[in-house]
Amino acid sequence: MSKIETVDQLFVHEIADLMSAEEQLIEALPKMAEAATANELKKAIEVHLAETEKQLERLEKIALEIKMKASDKKVCKAMKGLIAEGQEAVKEIPAGPVRDAAIIGAAQRVEHYEIAGYGTARALAQGLKLKNAVDLLNETIHEEGEADKKLTKIAEGVVNPEALASK
Amino acid sequence: MSKIETVDQLFVHEIADLMSAEEQLIEALPKMAEAATANELKKAIEVHLAETEKQLERLEKIALEIKMKASDKKVCKAMKGLIAEGQEAVKEIPAGPVRDAAIIGAAQRVEHYEIAGYGTARALAQGLKLKNAVDLLNETIHEEGEADKKLTKIAEGVVNPEALASK
Repeated sequence: MSKIETVDQLFVHEIADLMSAEEQLIEALPKMAEAATANELKKAIEVHLAETEKQLERLEKIALEIKMKASDKKVCKAMKGLIAEGQEAVKEIPAGPVRDAAIIGAAQRVEHYEIAGYGTARALAQGLKLKNAVDLLNETIHEEGEADKKLTKIAEGVVNPEALASK
Repeated sequence: MSKIETVDQLFVHEIADLMSAEEQLIEALPKMAEAATANELKKAIEVHLAETEKQLERLEKIALEIKMKASDKKVCKAMKGLIAEGQEAVKEIPAGPVRDAAIIGAAQRVEHYEIAGYGTARALAQGLKLKNAVDLLNETIHEEGEADKKLTKIAEGVVNPEALASK
Protein backbone atom coordinates (compact mmCIF):
# COMPACT_ATOMS: atom_id res chain seq x y z
CA MET A 1 0.00 0.00 0.00
CA SER A 2 1.27 3.41 -0.91
CA LYS A 3 1.42 6.28 1.55
CA ILE A 4 -1.88 7.50 2.96
CA GLU A 5 -2.26 11.26 3.05
CA THR A 6 -5.92 12.00 2.40
CA VAL A 7 -9.28 10.76 3.66
CA ASP A 8 -9.94 9.22 0.22
CA GLN A 9 -6.78 7.15 0.59
CA LEU A 10 -7.67 6.22 4.18
CA PHE A 11 -11.09 5.07 2.98
CA VAL A 12 -9.42 2.86 0.33
CA HIS A 13 -7.20 1.45 3.09
CA GLU A 14 -10.19 0.70 5.35
CA ILE A 15 -12.14 -0.99 2.55
CA ALA A 16 -9.04 -3.09 1.65
CA ASP A 17 -8.73 -4.11 5.31
CA LEU A 18 -12.38 -5.19 5.47
CA MET A 19 -12.07 -7.10 2.17
CA SER A 20 -9.15 -9.07 3.57
CA ALA A 21 -11.03 -9.66 6.82
CA GLU A 22 -14.09 -11.03 4.97
CA GLU A 23 -11.94 -13.18 2.66
CA GLN A 24 -10.19 -14.75 5.63
CA LEU A 25 -13.53 -15.31 7.33
CA ILE A 26 -14.96 -17.09 4.29
CA GLU A 27 -12.04 -19.54 4.60
CA ALA A 28 -12.42 -19.96 8.36
CA LEU A 29 -16.20 -20.21 8.90
CA PRO A 30 -16.72 -23.69 7.36
CA LYS A 31 -14.08 -25.08 9.75
CA MET A 32 -15.81 -23.35 12.67
CA ALA A 33 -19.19 -24.85 11.66
CA GLU A 34 -17.57 -28.28 11.47
CA ALA A 35 -15.99 -27.90 14.91
CA ALA A 36 -19.32 -26.91 16.49
CA THR A 37 -21.67 -29.47 18.08
CA ALA A 38 -25.01 -27.70 18.73
CA ASN A 39 -27.17 -27.69 15.60
CA GLU A 40 -28.34 -24.12 16.24
CA LEU A 41 -24.72 -22.96 16.27
CA LYS A 42 -23.71 -24.94 13.17
CA LYS A 43 -26.67 -23.47 11.30
CA ALA A 44 -26.02 -19.91 12.52
CA ILE A 45 -22.43 -20.13 11.29
CA GLU A 46 -23.53 -21.48 7.91
CA VAL A 47 -26.09 -18.68 7.53
CA HIS A 48 -23.41 -16.17 8.45
CA LEU A 49 -21.06 -17.65 5.83
CA ALA A 50 -23.67 -16.89 3.15
CA GLU A 51 -24.03 -13.35 4.58
CA THR A 52 -20.27 -12.89 4.63
CA GLU A 53 -20.08 -13.76 0.93
CA LYS A 54 -22.67 -11.05 0.21
CA GLN A 55 -20.78 -8.60 2.44
CA LEU A 56 -17.62 -9.22 0.42
CA GLU A 57 -19.59 -8.57 -2.80
CA ARG A 58 -20.74 -5.23 -1.35
CA LEU A 59 -17.13 -4.31 -0.58
CA GLU A 60 -16.15 -5.27 -4.13
CA LYS A 61 -18.83 -2.90 -5.46
CA ILE A 62 -17.41 -0.11 -3.30
CA ALA A 63 -13.85 -0.99 -4.39
CA LEU A 64 -14.91 -0.60 -8.02
CA GLU A 65 -16.58 2.74 -7.26
CA ILE A 66 -13.49 4.16 -5.55
CA LYS A 67 -11.17 2.64 -8.20
CA MET A 68 -9.18 0.48 -5.79
CA LYS A 69 -5.97 -0.81 -7.39
CA ALA A 70 -4.45 -4.27 -6.94
CA SER A 71 -1.57 -2.59 -5.05
CA ASP A 72 -4.05 -1.25 -2.46
CA LYS A 73 -4.82 -4.82 -1.34
CA LYS A 74 -3.56 -5.80 2.09
CA VAL A 75 -3.71 -8.60 4.62
CA CYS A 76 -5.78 -7.78 7.71
CA LYS A 77 -3.45 -8.83 10.52
CA ALA A 78 -6.09 -8.33 13.18
CA MET A 79 -8.47 -10.83 11.55
CA LYS A 80 -5.54 -13.23 11.18
CA GLY A 81 -5.01 -13.06 14.95
CA LEU A 82 -8.72 -13.34 15.70
CA ILE A 83 -9.05 -16.47 13.57
CA ALA A 84 -5.83 -18.02 14.95
CA GLU A 85 -7.20 -17.53 18.44
CA GLY A 86 -10.51 -19.22 17.61
CA GLN A 87 -8.70 -22.17 16.02
CA GLU A 88 -6.41 -22.49 19.04
CA ALA A 89 -9.47 -22.76 21.33
CA VAL A 90 -10.98 -25.45 19.10
CA LYS A 91 -7.77 -27.46 19.36
CA GLU A 92 -7.63 -27.15 23.16
CA ILE A 93 -11.24 -28.09 23.83
CA PRO A 94 -12.90 -31.41 22.98
CA ALA A 95 -16.11 -31.24 20.92
CA GLY A 96 -19.21 -30.43 22.99
CA PRO A 97 -20.94 -27.50 24.70
CA VAL A 98 -17.76 -26.05 26.29
CA ARG A 99 -16.09 -25.86 22.89
CA ASP A 100 -19.29 -24.37 21.47
CA ALA A 101 -19.18 -21.66 24.16
CA ALA A 102 -15.59 -20.87 23.15
CA ILE A 103 -16.52 -20.80 19.45
CA ILE A 104 -19.31 -18.31 20.20
CA GLY A 105 -16.84 -16.17 22.17
CA ALA A 106 -14.41 -16.16 19.23
CA ALA A 107 -17.18 -15.47 16.71
CA GLN A 108 -18.49 -12.53 18.74
CA ARG A 109 -15.01 -11.02 18.87
CA VAL A 110 -14.93 -11.29 15.07
CA GLU A 111 -18.40 -9.69 14.76
CA HIS A 112 -17.35 -6.82 16.99
CA TYR A 113 -14.15 -6.30 15.01
CA GLU A 114 -16.26 -5.96 11.90
CA ILE A 115 -18.87 -3.71 13.56
CA ALA A 116 -16.04 -1.33 14.54
CA GLY A 117 -14.31 -1.58 11.16
CA TYR A 118 -17.48 -1.00 9.16
CA GLY A 119 -18.41 1.85 11.51
CA THR A 120 -15.12 3.62 10.76
CA ALA A 121 -15.57 3.04 7.02
CA ARG A 122 -19.13 4.39 7.14
CA ALA A 123 -18.05 7.54 8.99
CA LEU A 124 -15.41 8.18 6.30
CA ALA A 125 -17.87 7.44 3.46
CA GLN A 126 -20.36 9.89 5.00
CA GLY A 127 -17.65 12.56 5.16
CA LEU A 128 -16.69 11.86 1.55
CA LYS A 129 -20.40 11.97 0.54
CA LEU A 130 -20.22 8.51 -1.07
CA LYS A 131 -23.94 7.84 -0.69
CA ASN A 132 -23.94 4.47 -2.39
CA ALA A 133 -21.07 3.22 -0.23
CA VAL A 134 -22.82 4.47 2.94
CA ASP A 135 -25.94 2.48 1.98
CA LEU A 136 -23.95 -0.69 1.26
CA LEU A 137 -21.99 -0.38 4.53
CA ASN A 138 -25.22 0.21 6.48
CA GLU A 139 -26.69 -3.05 5.18
CA THR A 140 -23.65 -4.96 6.41
CA ILE A 141 -23.51 -3.19 9.79
CA HIS A 142 -27.15 -4.16 10.35
CA GLU A 143 -26.41 -7.82 9.48
CA GLU A 144 -23.34 -7.97 11.74
CA GLY A 145 -25.34 -6.60 14.65
CA GLU A 146 -28.07 -9.18 14.10
CA ALA A 147 -25.50 -12.01 13.83
CA ASP A 148 -23.98 -10.89 17.15
CA LYS A 149 -27.40 -10.87 18.85
CA LYS A 150 -28.22 -14.31 17.45
CA LEU A 151 -24.97 -15.70 18.91
CA THR A 152 -25.81 -14.23 22.34
CA LYS A 153 -29.21 -15.95 22.17
CA ILE A 154 -27.65 -19.31 21.29
CA ALA A 155 -25.09 -18.92 24.10
CA GLU A 156 -27.70 -17.97 26.72
CA GLY A 157 -30.45 -20.29 25.56
CA VAL A 158 -28.63 -23.46 24.55
CA VAL A 159 -24.87 -23.66 24.80
CA ASN A 160 -24.01 -22.16 28.20
CA PRO A 161 -26.74 -24.03 30.13
CA GLU A 162 -25.61 -27.32 28.54
CA ALA A 163 -21.96 -26.56 29.22
CA LEU A 164 -22.76 -25.75 32.86
CA ALA A 165 -24.88 -28.90 33.24
CA SER A 166 -21.99 -31.07 32.00
CA LYS A 167 -19.77 -29.69 34.79
CA MET B 1 -2.49 -23.94 28.93
CA SER B 2 -3.79 -27.36 29.83
CA LYS B 3 -6.80 -28.92 28.15
CA ILE B 4 -10.13 -27.15 28.66
CA GLU B 5 -13.02 -29.44 29.49
CA THR B 6 -15.29 -27.50 31.85
CA VAL B 7 -16.85 -24.04 32.00
CA ASP B 8 -14.60 -23.22 35.00
CA GLN B 9 -11.55 -23.95 32.84
CA LEU B 10 -13.00 -21.97 29.93
CA PHE B 11 -13.55 -19.03 32.27
CA VAL B 12 -9.91 -19.20 33.38
CA HIS B 13 -8.91 -19.26 29.69
CA GLU B 14 -11.06 -16.20 28.90
CA ILE B 15 -9.71 -14.23 31.87
CA ALA B 16 -6.12 -15.14 30.86
CA ASP B 17 -6.86 -13.93 27.33
CA LEU B 18 -8.20 -10.61 28.61
CA MET B 19 -5.22 -10.16 30.96
CA SER B 20 -2.83 -10.58 28.05
CA ALA B 21 -4.93 -8.21 25.93
CA GLU B 22 -4.82 -5.49 28.62
CA GLU B 23 -1.10 -6.00 29.25
CA GLN B 24 -0.35 -5.55 25.55
CA LEU B 25 -2.57 -2.49 25.47
CA ILE B 26 -0.76 -0.87 28.40
CA GLU B 27 2.44 -1.17 26.34
CA ALA B 28 0.85 0.12 23.14
CA LEU B 29 -1.31 3.05 24.29
CA PRO B 30 1.52 5.48 25.16
CA LYS B 31 2.89 5.06 21.61
CA MET B 32 -0.58 5.68 20.21
CA ALA B 33 -0.96 8.86 22.30
CA GLU B 34 2.43 10.05 21.06
CA ALA B 35 1.51 9.37 17.42
CA ALA B 36 -1.75 11.35 17.73
CA THR B 37 -1.98 15.05 16.87
CA ALA B 38 -5.35 16.32 18.15
CA ASN B 39 -5.19 17.21 21.83
CA GLU B 40 -8.62 15.70 22.52
CA LEU B 41 -7.42 12.37 21.10
CA LYS B 42 -4.11 12.41 22.96
CA LYS B 43 -5.94 13.10 26.19
CA ALA B 44 -8.60 10.45 25.57
CA ILE B 45 -5.91 7.83 24.99
CA GLU B 46 -4.07 8.86 28.16
CA VAL B 47 -7.28 8.67 30.20
CA HIS B 48 -7.95 5.25 28.70
CA LEU B 49 -4.46 4.10 29.65
CA ALA B 50 -5.24 4.85 33.30
CA GLU B 51 -8.56 2.98 32.94
CA THR B 52 -6.80 0.03 31.30
CA GLU B 53 -4.45 -0.24 34.26
CA LYS B 54 -7.46 -0.44 36.57
CA GLN B 55 -9.12 -2.98 34.30
CA LEU B 56 -6.04 -5.19 34.53
CA GLU B 57 -6.16 -4.90 38.33
CA ARG B 58 -9.78 -6.07 38.26
CA LEU B 59 -8.76 -9.08 36.18
CA GLU B 60 -5.96 -9.82 38.63
CA LYS B 61 -8.52 -9.84 41.46
CA ILE B 62 -10.65 -12.31 39.51
CA ALA B 63 -7.57 -14.43 38.70
CA LEU B 64 -6.83 -14.67 42.41
CA GLU B 65 -10.41 -15.63 43.17
CA ILE B 66 -10.45 -18.43 40.58
CA LYS B 67 -6.93 -19.54 41.58
CA MET B 68 -5.37 -18.98 38.15
CA LYS B 69 -1.96 -20.65 37.84
CA ALA B 70 1.11 -19.28 36.05
CA SER B 71 0.68 -22.05 33.48
CA ASP B 72 -2.78 -20.70 32.59
CA LYS B 73 -1.22 -17.51 31.26
CA LYS B 74 -1.36 -17.02 27.49
CA VAL B 75 -0.61 -14.49 24.78
CA CYS B 76 -3.70 -13.00 23.19
CA LYS B 77 -2.93 -13.35 19.48
CA ALA B 78 -5.94 -11.32 18.45
CA MET B 79 -4.77 -8.26 20.43
CA LYS B 80 -1.30 -8.74 18.96
CA GLY B 81 -2.82 -8.48 15.47
CA LEU B 82 -4.99 -5.53 16.42
CA ILE B 83 -2.04 -3.59 17.78
CA ALA B 84 0.21 -4.51 14.83
CA GLU B 85 -2.44 -3.19 12.50
CA GLY B 86 -2.72 0.12 14.35
CA GLN B 87 1.05 0.55 14.35
CA GLU B 88 1.22 -0.21 10.63
CA ALA B 89 -1.31 2.55 9.96
CA VAL B 90 0.72 5.02 12.03
CA LYS B 91 3.80 4.20 9.96
CA GLU B 92 1.98 4.65 6.65
CA ILE B 93 0.32 7.96 7.48
CA PRO B 94 2.10 11.23 8.29
CA ALA B 95 1.10 12.94 11.56
CA GLY B 96 -2.11 14.97 11.29
CA PRO B 97 -5.88 14.51 11.15
CA VAL B 98 -5.85 11.62 8.64
CA ARG B 99 -3.53 9.65 10.91
CA ASP B 100 -5.72 10.58 13.87
CA ALA B 101 -8.76 9.19 12.04
CA ALA B 102 -6.87 5.92 11.46
CA ILE B 103 -5.79 5.79 15.13
CA ILE B 104 -9.43 6.19 16.21
CA GLY B 105 -10.42 3.40 13.82
CA ALA B 106 -7.77 1.10 15.30
CA ALA B 107 -8.67 2.06 18.88
CA GLN B 108 -12.37 1.37 18.29
CA ARG B 109 -11.54 -2.09 16.91
CA VAL B 110 -9.62 -2.70 20.14
CA GLU B 111 -12.55 -1.43 22.27
CA HIS B 112 -14.95 -3.69 20.44
CA TYR B 113 -12.66 -6.69 20.84
CA GLU B 114 -12.69 -6.06 24.55
CA ILE B 115 -16.45 -5.45 24.73
CA ALA B 116 -16.99 -8.85 23.08
CA GLY B 117 -14.35 -10.59 25.21
CA TYR B 118 -15.61 -9.15 28.49
CA GLY B 119 -19.18 -9.98 27.42
CA THR B 120 -18.25 -13.64 26.97
CA ALA B 121 -16.43 -13.69 30.32
CA ARG B 122 -19.41 -12.07 32.09
CA ALA B 123 -21.85 -14.65 30.61
CA LEU B 124 -19.63 -17.46 31.91
CA ALA B 125 -19.22 -15.80 35.33
CA GLN B 126 -23.00 -15.42 35.59
CA GLY B 127 -23.45 -19.11 34.79
CA LEU B 128 -20.81 -20.02 37.36
CA LYS B 129 -22.49 -17.70 39.93
CA LEU B 130 -19.26 -15.79 40.54
CA LYS B 131 -21.02 -12.64 41.74
CA ASN B 132 -17.89 -10.67 42.54
CA ALA B 133 -16.40 -11.41 39.12
CA VAL B 134 -19.64 -10.39 37.40
CA ASP B 135 -19.57 -7.03 39.21
CA LEU B 136 -15.91 -6.40 38.32
CA LEU B 137 -16.49 -7.36 34.67
CA ASN B 138 -19.57 -5.10 34.52
CA GLU B 139 -17.53 -2.10 35.65
CA THR B 140 -15.05 -2.67 32.84
CA ILE B 141 -17.71 -3.30 30.18
CA HIS B 142 -19.31 0.03 31.11
CA GLU B 143 -15.95 1.84 30.81
CA GLU B 144 -15.14 0.24 27.46
CA GLY B 145 -18.52 1.29 26.08
CA GLU B 146 -17.97 4.87 27.26
CA ALA B 147 -14.46 4.93 25.78
CA ASP B 148 -15.86 3.78 22.44
CA LYS B 149 -18.54 6.50 22.47
CA LYS B 150 -15.97 9.14 23.36
CA LEU B 151 -13.83 8.10 20.37
CA THR B 152 -16.85 8.38 18.05
CA LYS B 153 -17.48 11.90 19.36
CA ILE B 154 -13.86 12.92 18.77
CA ALA B 155 -13.96 11.43 15.25
CA GLU B 156 -17.22 13.14 14.31
CA GLY B 157 -16.63 16.42 16.09
CA VAL B 158 -12.94 17.11 15.54
CA VAL B 159 -10.82 14.67 13.60
CA ASN B 160 -12.89 13.70 10.55
CA PRO B 161 -13.97 17.27 9.71
CA GLU B 162 -10.34 18.43 9.94
CA ALA B 163 -9.13 15.48 7.87
CA LEU B 164 -11.77 16.22 5.22
CA ALA B 165 -10.91 19.94 5.21
CA SER B 166 -7.23 19.14 4.57
CA LYS B 167 -8.19 17.22 1.42
